[in-house]
Amino acid sequence: MKKAGILGGGQLGRMLLQAAINYPVETFVLENDLHCPAAHLCHHFVKGDITSFEDVYNFGKDLDVLTIEIENVNQEAIELLEKDGVKIYPSPAALKIIKNKILQKQFYKDNQVPTSPFIITQNIQELEQQINFLPAVHKVGTGGYDGRGVQVIQNKDDIVKGFDIPAVLEKSVDIKKEIAIIIAVDDKDKTAIYPAVDMVFNQQLNTLDYQISPAELPEKILWKAEAIALKVVKELKSPGIFAVELFIDLDDNVWVNETAPRVHNSGHHTIEGNYCSQFDMLWRIMLGYPLGNTAPILPAAIVNLLGAKGYTGIATYQGLEEIMQVENIFVHIYSKKETKPGRKMGHITILSKEKQELIHQANKIKQTVKVIVE
Amino acid sequence: MKKAGILGGGQLGRMLLQAAINYPVETFVLENDLHCPAAHLCHHFVKGDITSFEDVYNFGKDLDVLTIEIENVNQEAIELLEKDGVKIYPSPAALKIIKNKILQKQFYKDNQVPTSPFIITQNIQELEQQINFLPAVHKVGTGGYDGRGVQVIQNKDDIVKGFDIPAVLEKSVDIKKEIAIIIAVDDKDKTAIYPAVDMVFNQQLNTLDYQISPAELPEKILWKAEAIALKVVKELKSPGIFAVELFIDLDDNVWVNETAPRVHNSGHHTIEGNYCSQFDMLWRIMLGYPLGNTAPILPAAIVNLLGAKGYTGIATYQGLEEIMQVENIFVHIYSKKETKPGRKMGHITILSKEKQELIHQANKIKQTVKVIVE
Repeated sequence: MKKAGILGGGQLGRMLLQAAINYPVETFVLENDLHCPAAHLCHHFVKGDITSFEDVYNFGKDLDVLTIEIENVNQEAIELLEKDGVKIYPSPAALKIIKNKILQKQFYKDNQVPTSPFIITQNIQELEQQINFLPAVHKVGTGGYDGRGVQVIQNKDDIVKGFDIPAVLEKSVDIKKEIAIIIAVDDKDKTAIYPAVDMVFNQQLNTLDYQISPAELPEKILWKAEAIALKVVKELKSPGIFAVELFIDLDDNVWVNETAPRVHNSGHHTIEGNYCSQFDMLWRIMLGYPLGNTAPILPAAIVNLLGAKGYTGIATYQGLEEIMQVENIFVHIYSKKETKPGRKMGHITILSKEKQELIHQANKIKQTVKVIVE
Repeated sequence: MKKAGILGGGQLGRMLLQAAINYPVETFVLENDLHCPAAHLCHHFVKGDITSFEDVYNFGKDLDVLTIEIENVNQEAIELLEKDGVKIYPSPAALKIIKNKILQKQFYKDNQVPTSPFIITQNIQELEQQINFLPAVHKVGTGGYDGRGVQVIQNKDDIVKGFDIPAVLEKSVDIKKEIAIIIAVDDKDKTAIYPAVDMVFNQQLNTLDYQISPAELPEKILWKAEAIALKVVKELKSPGIFAVELFIDLDDNVWVNETAPRVHNSGHHTIEGNYCSQFDMLWRIMLGYPLGNTAPILPAAIVNLLGAKGYTGIATYQGLEEIMQVENIFVHIYSKKETKPGRKMGHITILSKEKQELIHQANKIKQTVKVIVE
C-alpha cells in the first residue's frame, strides 16, 4: 500500500482524504493545528509546520507520494525529497514558479502565454514611479492567499495601499468575465480537462461569491481558453491538478490571471457535478491509475459559506435544513471549530439542468445560510 | 455539533464516515479491531465489543445519535440507551425483530406481508420431523451473516447440514429473480424509495455476485414489490435505512426474503449512481435534515471484490489499473489488512446507459480484478 502525504490539513486536505477512502493508500497529514479539518481523517496526523525544512523533510522522507494543500510549503525540503525519490504533485520546480507571483508572471511572459502587462516592484518607492501604469493590481510575490496580499491601485492616492516588499503590478484588464479551467496531468503527461467554470467574485473580500459550470462562452472563446490553459500546464511540465484562472476581456481576448498547482475552490462542484471529482482525479494520478472522466453529470453551481460579519467564535450553521429541502443541493461543512468574518467554513453545491435555477438557488443559499456563533 | 456513534467499524462504517465528512458531526466508532476499515476515519475510536452490554452502554451514553453497522449488537444496552434519550437508527424494537430470523419471519406473517411458508425448529430433532416440508432453506435465528448460518436442505440426506439451535425452515421458492429495495425513513415517518436492484448471487458462497439497478421488471410487479417493501418498513415503525430483499417467483408473486435495518451491500451503487447515496441519506436522517434525492444518475452495476481462493494474508489488488481505464468505473477498496477466501474486500461500481455494457463490464471486472496476497 502506497504511503501518501498531504502538506496542510484544511478543507482541501479534508476533501482529498474523503476521496482517498476509495483506494488502498495509507494517508499522512502535516499540520500545526491539531483540530484542523483533515486531522481526524488520515491514518497518521503529524503535528508540524509546513514552512519548516525539518518538519517537511522528516514528514516526507518515508513517503511514496506527497501533495500540497497550499503553495506556501518549505521549498528546499520538497526539492530534497524529490531527489530522494519521493514523487511530488506538483513538482517542486512547478511549485517554485507558481508560489511566487513575480516568477509566475515572468513564466507566462517567457512562454508566450497571454497575460496582462506587468511591472515588478521591489518596494513602495518603485511602485510610486509607476503612476502612468495605473489602474493596476498590486500582488505580493509570496505569502498572499485568498485575497490577502492583493491591492487594487486605481490611482496615485492608492499607492499607500501598495506593498513595500517584492511584488508584481499587473495592469487592470476590463474584464467581461473570469473563468477557471481545471486540468489533470498524469505521470505520463496525459491530460484531462474539466469544463470551464464562470467565477463570480465578491468585490469586497476578493473571494469567490459563486460559480457556475459549465461557463457560458461562445465556443470559439472557450476553445481559445482551453488551449491557453493547456499550454500553461504543458509548460509547467509537472503532473498534478492545476486550476488556471483566466480573464475574458471586453474584446474577447483571453488572459491568464493565475494558476494554482493543486485542487482548487473552483473545482469543488466536481464532487457531485462530474463523474470524477478533482479530488478523486488527484488520487488517480498519485496512485498511478488512469485518469477519470471529467464529463459533467449536470450543470452545477457552488456557493462558498463564509463566516458572517460580526461573529467570531465557535461556529454554528443556520438555514441548512431549509435549503436542503430543495432537490440536488449538497452541503459541505469543513468543521472548522471557530468562525470569523469571511473565513471559508464550507460550500454548497447545486445541480440543475436549468441555469436560471442554479442562479436562483445560489442567491437563496446566500440569503438563507449563515455561519454564526453558537 | 451532534455526537454520532457507529457500532462496528467495517466497510459500512467506513462508507458512512466518508459521507459524514460533508456535515457538522462528531463521529465515534466502537469496534474491537484497531485496524478495522473505519478506525482512522472517525473523531473518536473506542476499542470495545459491540456485543458487550458494558462496552455498548458506555460508548453510547454521551452520544446524541447511534447507528449500527451489523445487527449483532448488544440489545439490552441499546434499549437502555434509547430510554436515556439517545436516538437510535434503527429503533431497538425494530432491530430486535430483524436480528432474529425467527422473529422476523413471524413479524411478516403477523403483518400479512407475503413471505414464503416457514416452520420454526428448536433443534435438529424438530428439523427431522419436517421431511414433507422440503426442499427448504434452514436459517439460524441469530448469529448468521453473509451466507453463514444458512443451509439449503433439499431432501432427507441434507438434514445433517441443518442447525441444532433455534432456526427457521423456509419453504423453497422457485425464484425467477431476487431484488432489493432500499427505503429511507426519517423521524417524521417521511419515506424515500430507491429504485429496485436486480441481485445476482454466487450459489457457492451465497454472497452477492453482481447487481444491476434499476431492476428489470414489468411495471406492475415493480409497483407490487415497492408497496410490499414499504409495508415492511411502515410496520417496523422505525426511522433509518432499510434494505428489503424480495423474491419474484415463477408466477410473478412477490415474497419478502429478509430485511436489513441498515445501509446495505445492495445499495453501494448509490454512491455514484444516485444523487443521494444511502450513506448520505442515513446522515440526513440522523442529523434531522430533509431526505435526499433517490433518483438514479445512470443505470449502475456493482461487483463485490472477494478474497480469491487459496490466498490468506496481507491483501494486494490485481487488475485495478486495467479496469479503471474504462469510463465511469469506480473502485472502492475497504483496506482490510488481511484477505481470505470469500472475504468482502471492496466493490466496484459501473455506470452506463446500456444494460449490456453493465453486464459486460461486471463480467470483465470479475475476470480481471483479483484480491490476492502480496
